[in-house]
Amino acid sequence: RRSYTITLLPGDGIGPEVISVAKSVLSLAASLEHISLQFDELPVGGAAIDLTGAPLPAETLAAAKSSDAVLLGAIGGYKWDTNEKHLKPETGLLQLRSGLGVFANLRPAVVLPQLVDSSTLKREVAEGVDIMVVRELTGGIYFGNPRGFRKDDKGEDFGFNTEVYSGSEIDRIARIAFKVARKRRGKLCSVDKANVLESSMLWRKRVSALAAEFPDVELSHMYVDNAAMQLIRDPKQFDTIVTNNIFGDILSDEASMLTGSIGMLPSASVGESGPGLFEPIHGSAPDIAGQDKANPLATVLSAAMLLRYALGEENAARRIEDAVIETLNMGFRTGDIFSAGMTLVGCKRMGEEVLKSV
Amino acid sequence: RRSYTITLLPGDGIGPEVISVAKSVLSLAASLEHISLQFDELPVGGAAIDLTGAPLPAETLAAAKSSDAVLLGAIGGYKWDTNEKHLKPETGLLQLRSGLGVFANLRPAVVLPQLVDSSTLKREVAEGVDIMVVRELTGGIYFGNPRGFRKDDKGEDFGFNTEVYSGSEIDRIARIAFKVARKRRGKLCSVDKANVLESSMLWRKRVSALAAEFPDVELSHMYVDNAAMQLIRDPKQFDTIVTNNIFGDILSDEASMLTGSIGMLPSASVGESGPGLFEPIHGSAPDIAGQDKANPLATVLSAAMLLRYALGEENAARRIEDAVIETLNMGFRTGDIFSAGMTLVGCKRMGEEVLKSV
Ligand SMILES: CC(C)[C@H](C(=O)O)[C@@H](O)C(=O)O
Ligand SMILES: CC(C)[C@H](C(=O)O)[C@@H](O)C(=O)O
Repeated sequence: RRSYTITLLPGDGIGPEVISVAKSVLSLAASLEHISLQFDELPVGGAAIDLTGAPLPAETLAAAKSSDAVLLGAIGGYKWDTNEKHLKPETGLLQLRSGLGVFANLRPAVVLPQLVDSSTLKREVAEGVDIMVVRELTGGIYFGNPRGFRKDDKGEDFGFNTEVYSGSEIDRIARIAFKVARKRRGKLCSVDKANVLESSMLWRKRVSALAAEFPDVELSHMYVDNAAMQLIRDPKQFDTIVTNNIFGDILSDEASMLTGSIGMLPSASVGESGPGLFEPIHGSAPDIAGQDKANPLATVLSAAMLLRYALGEENAARRIEDAVIETLNMGFRTGDIFSAGMTLVGCKRMGEEVLKSV
Repeated sequence: RRSYTITLLPGDGIGPEVISVAKSVLSLAASLEHISLQFDELPVGGAAIDLTGAPLPAETLAAAKSSDAVLLGAIGGYKWDTNEKHLKPETGLLQLRSGLGVFANLRPAVVLPQLVDSSTLKREVAEGVDIMVVRELTGGIYFGNPRGFRKDDKGEDFGFNTEVYSGSEIDRIARIAFKVARKRRGKLCSVDKANVLESSMLWRKRVSALAAEFPDVELSHMYVDNAAMQLIRDPKQFDTIVTNNIFGDILSDEASMLTGSIGMLPSASVGESGPGLFEPIHGSAPDIAGQDKANPLATVLSAAMLLRYALGEENAARRIEDAVIETLNMGFRTGDIFSAGMTLVGCKRMGEEVLKSV
């Protein structure tokens, strides 16, 4: 009997609701595959600030580090929006990513045939979209120094940040992206702003140099402004995209919205070794928190990614993914993906329906 | 008789073709309104590199500065893509923006009723979209110092840039944006990444502080990743958007592609005083350069913006805009906006048709 420890970080807003559903689904899939899972639930984000005064308490990071994988709900909410930086929920998430060393964030944007009408794109444009955005997650302008505020001698205020990448940081994320592309359709598009930024010039140079190691992958380069356009003009041209932290933040959200169903999209963040971090790409949705309205499927599918990528438990992962498809095929929909003729359900009920098919 | 000097900068790729059309249209509209225009044509971008060894020759900048307004075609092309930074066409454009002090870039993204089907968005989502993106153009990570490359003592390479804004840089672009919003539908959305970046925290603070001066404008704030999603989910929620240089580069291109007709979209860049810079938002399209296939209407409409904003010649501007609408109503379309039942024309012919209606 294989056994693993999973750190659950419900976080804020709808986080606890979707984590609760994902936990049941994960437990059932595991037990059916004779895997034993031990769950360890800890606070992060706003919940942790309220409880302990810090968005990532030391015990939470320690538990996460010593577990086999981490499943996160969502963080953030109006209540903490005006907090100082070290007391923002977002700071806790950044500390967690950095603390776990999960530098590669994989964000699939897939238009499911059942949900193609949820997209605001025309059916013929949206149908069949299947993009994987590989975002660098622990470097760039998010973490670069120097950063902060200063006053010049005339009393003028400045706010500043540093966008910085080292060659080896670029190489390691690019290697992961080439490998991901190789397992998909063999096309990798590296996105940068190398016509203006030195950090991007180094990015392009290093990614290009690695191409020789992956002769089976077709590499192209695109400027970030053009990528933002091309995703809308013809998303099917993309297979795998690799880009830096801030461009990845923007483009992966753009790509996910093309599907019209961001309540469905999971993500995985992994490092060279150590536990990976799995989370839905949607936020904490404070406006619907506690109302049993959230779509738990992105978190459920994140749990499937966790089984596959962190634990190597392909069968259990497949069980969950098939159960989600089956539940959609039976017509169950939360509000965010509802359309006429379907059965509208809440977060809990959606979880119960998935459980029936696991 | 009012008389003005216009600097024409055809640039690269399709630049010369679209400038040539815009020049004829501008001349005719001006003469019908008893305005005399003197044109001064100079090289910029790749063309200038080939001719003079620099992407913005001193004479070009001097001529631009001493004229009443500047009309630019487009810059860039494969030929110069691997040049070093000081020999990139893009560097010439950045020097021009900076040299003219045009810190406010206005980029309308409007879905014309005649072209709503060019959009990849569903008709009901695209119809009626009318967004103005106000992008800060002479600051931020595009111009921030320090920037460049360095090696650490272990021989590791780094590429770095600085995202920096001063309070007064933020105030002046925000003031313009509030004024633009006031003349439109009175809604201003300021886009930043204030949950992570100090430069954005200062941005949000300064923009918020200015709101008191514009009680008739409804100000909201949005994170850039969310803005990239919301533009696709429901673009009609936006009226005026104000944001920094790099976010504006990405979001204005995204917004423009929502219209499906970026060959139609003009832009204006203005400063506190001095000549403004007017250019289509599309690029130099080297793949169709010299083939008489380009859509000249974005440049023609940029000429209209030039008449209105730089010269205060509202009637002549209106003549051009009405002529463009009339030409579309008559069914003339270049390849990029062609649809069944319309008359396919080239760049020159499109210009001739517009001239008939000026
Ligand atoms: C919450 C925020 C700090 C975070 C980010 O910018 O990385 C989020 O937008 C994301 O993409 O996971
Ligand atoms: C060509 C390039 C330097 C430029 C920019 O990034 O500003 C372009 O993309 C634009 O938006 O006008």
